[in-house]
Amino acid sequence: MSDLSEFSLIQHYFEQLTAKRDDVLLGIGDDCALLQCPEDEVLAVSIDTLVENVHFFSDVDPESLGHKSLAVGLSDLAAMGAKPKWFTLALTLPEVHEVWLKKFSQGLAKLANEFKVQLVGGDTTKGPLSISIQVHGFVDPEKALRRDGAQVGDLIYVTNTLGDAGAALKLAQSELVNESFDNEDKRYLTRRLECPTPRLNLGQKLIGIASAAIDISDGLVADLGHILEKSSVGSRIDLARLPLSASLLKLERAEAEHLALYSGDDYELCFTAPANHYTEIEDMFQGQCTRIGVITNDDGIVVIENDKLKSLKNKGYDHFSNS
Amino acid sequence: MSDLSEFSLIQHYFEQLTAKRDDVLLGIGDDCALLQCPEDEVLAVSIDTLVENVHFFSDVDPESLGHKSLAVGLSDLAAMGAKPKWFTLALTLPEVHEVWLKKFSQGLAKLANEFKVQLVGGDTTKGPLSISIQVHGFVDPEKALRRDGAQVGDLIYVTNTLGDAGAALKLAQSELVNESFDNEDKRYLTRRLECPTPRLNLGQKLIGIASAAIDISDGLVADLGHILEKSSVGSRIDLARLPLSASLLKLERAEAEHLALYSGDDYELCFTAPANHYTEIEDMFQGQCTRIGVITNDDGIVVIENDKLKSLKNKGYDHFSNS
Repeated sequence: MSDLSEFSLIQHYFEQLTAKRDDVLLGIGDDCALLQCPEDEVLAVSIDTLVENVHFFSDVDPESLGHKSLAVGLSDLAAMGAKPKWFTLALTLPEVHEVWLKKFSQGLAKLANEFKVQLVGGDTTKGPLSISIQVHGFVDPEKALRRDGAQVGDLIYVTNTLGDAGAALKLAQSELVNESFDNEDKRYLTRRLECPTPRLNLGQKLIGIASAAIDISDGLVADLGHILEKSSVGSRIDLARLPLSASLLKLERAEAEHLALYSGDDYELCFTAPANHYTEIEDMFQGQCTRIGVITNDDGIVVIENDKLKSLKNKGYDHFSNS
Repeated sequence: MSDLSEFSLIQHYFEQLTAKRDDVLLGIGDDCALLQCPEDEVLAVSIDTLVENVHFFSDVDPESLGHKSLAVGLSDLAAMGAKPKWFTLALTLPEVHEVWLKKFSQGLAKLANEFKVQLVGGDTTKGPLSISIQVHGFVDPEKALRRDGAQVGDLIYVTNTLGDAGAALKLAQSELVNESFDNEDKRYLTRRLECPTPRLNLGQKLIGIASAAIDISDGLVADLGHILEKSSVGSRIDLARLPLSASLLKLERAEAEHLALYSGDDYELCFTAPANHYTEIEDMFQGQCTRIGVITNDDGIVVIENDKLKSLKNKGYDHFSNS
């Protein structure tokens, strides 16, 4: 162990694993990485930390953890419509466990290579297990998908299905009746929690179409709430239109809807678009996104349930109150 | 506590504290920050983590900790000769302690404002105390101070004095005789450990002069060793020329030299420069740096002690073996 300094650790496990990009002039191994920025676009950055027993269980598959650590950052780039390029990794470990590190780095590298993002720097430290990753991408500054562009009358969409990760979390915490699901459901739901797919391709296609976007990390109500707050608008959501997976629908409808509204970790996109893009969106994203409501002048989020209106409290997952 | 989500935490304590820069198109509060990159220069990035009881003591002054958390990153930019622009902060805290957060953010902001670097994003999470900061700067790619440019015959310099932070650490751990120092010495040494000064101005002035540079975080022998390894050269260091503070010189000379060679955390710069820059460097950096040796074909680091040569083992602080 003593011959693995922080420097060689990062080099040994990670340097050769990710895509090599021409715009990396100097990668791991100096005081800084040196990176060539494209002209006419702006740098988009986001940093996220995953902490043991807060964001993941101690017995999580390290390969899945490597995937998720990068996926949450790439999901932020997706939500801006940005093209991903590089990431840095600050890894804090209680000890150097070679099998764990190998699996973790493989999960990380597989996702990185899928989207051609290169690891360009890092810091490995001894301490309680946590992972901070910063992602770097580029986007046209005039067309970036910000949170503050939603207008009254815009349609509201979400990608794929919601609530699956939340169901998996509740299953793991024995807060859901296990018997609702067969083994295939459990595998599907667990994979949705542990290996979220960053919707980078969808995000980039939404450039020029969406008026606002966010990724759903804290739950639809909380994250749509951020768009509403930043855009100074309200919304109506049709509960019957919430996209729910076949697995989730094995629960009571009310419970499934509650998970879709309030549980986090799905890393799907929620976006708004002017109604004149309706046909274009239907054609372009067939089956990949669902229209769930409309931007209004209401105060916050109003849901439509059996033709009745109900105002929702804007509350999602809070790392300091619920963890 | 429950009303302080991770988002509002960062906003509440940090958003208003740091310099506002025109090149920040979108700062804290969206999925990503959007940042305007200058043309003709490349992005330089570095990420560093400080962990409680590994990099700092639990009872450290939070204002100093805020300063140091940013200083170690800015020191990496200094070592590339880069101009600093932005930083991100991933802060993991066991609880929301308002007094601590206020002091920590003040220490951070004071240093940030001194160098006009803006906080552009972050993540605040519950967990064991640790701080990851990524710094972003820009530098001419042809002139950046890399580690691999040292040539045989180049002179070796360090800025200011070495070993002070190491002495403070040993004092705190009761491994040095307390009586060697008066209260003023102790204040000076502790400040050197807790509030290092990133040598950004010196680093930028070295552009076009230095052939290689590194900041001394792990000790002179370890960090000069990185330059030697990357440049495929060796070095001779004249022990009598090591710059030692008046406080450090209250120790036995051999002990002071040992600290200057092996102890980390000084965050001074070590750089090499062709001998024809000798007069320019003497004139430009009067009293701010000291010539300590020369790049050679030796194997690693050879020290000159009383006209005798001695080979040093290339070993500095290792976070996994010594912490």
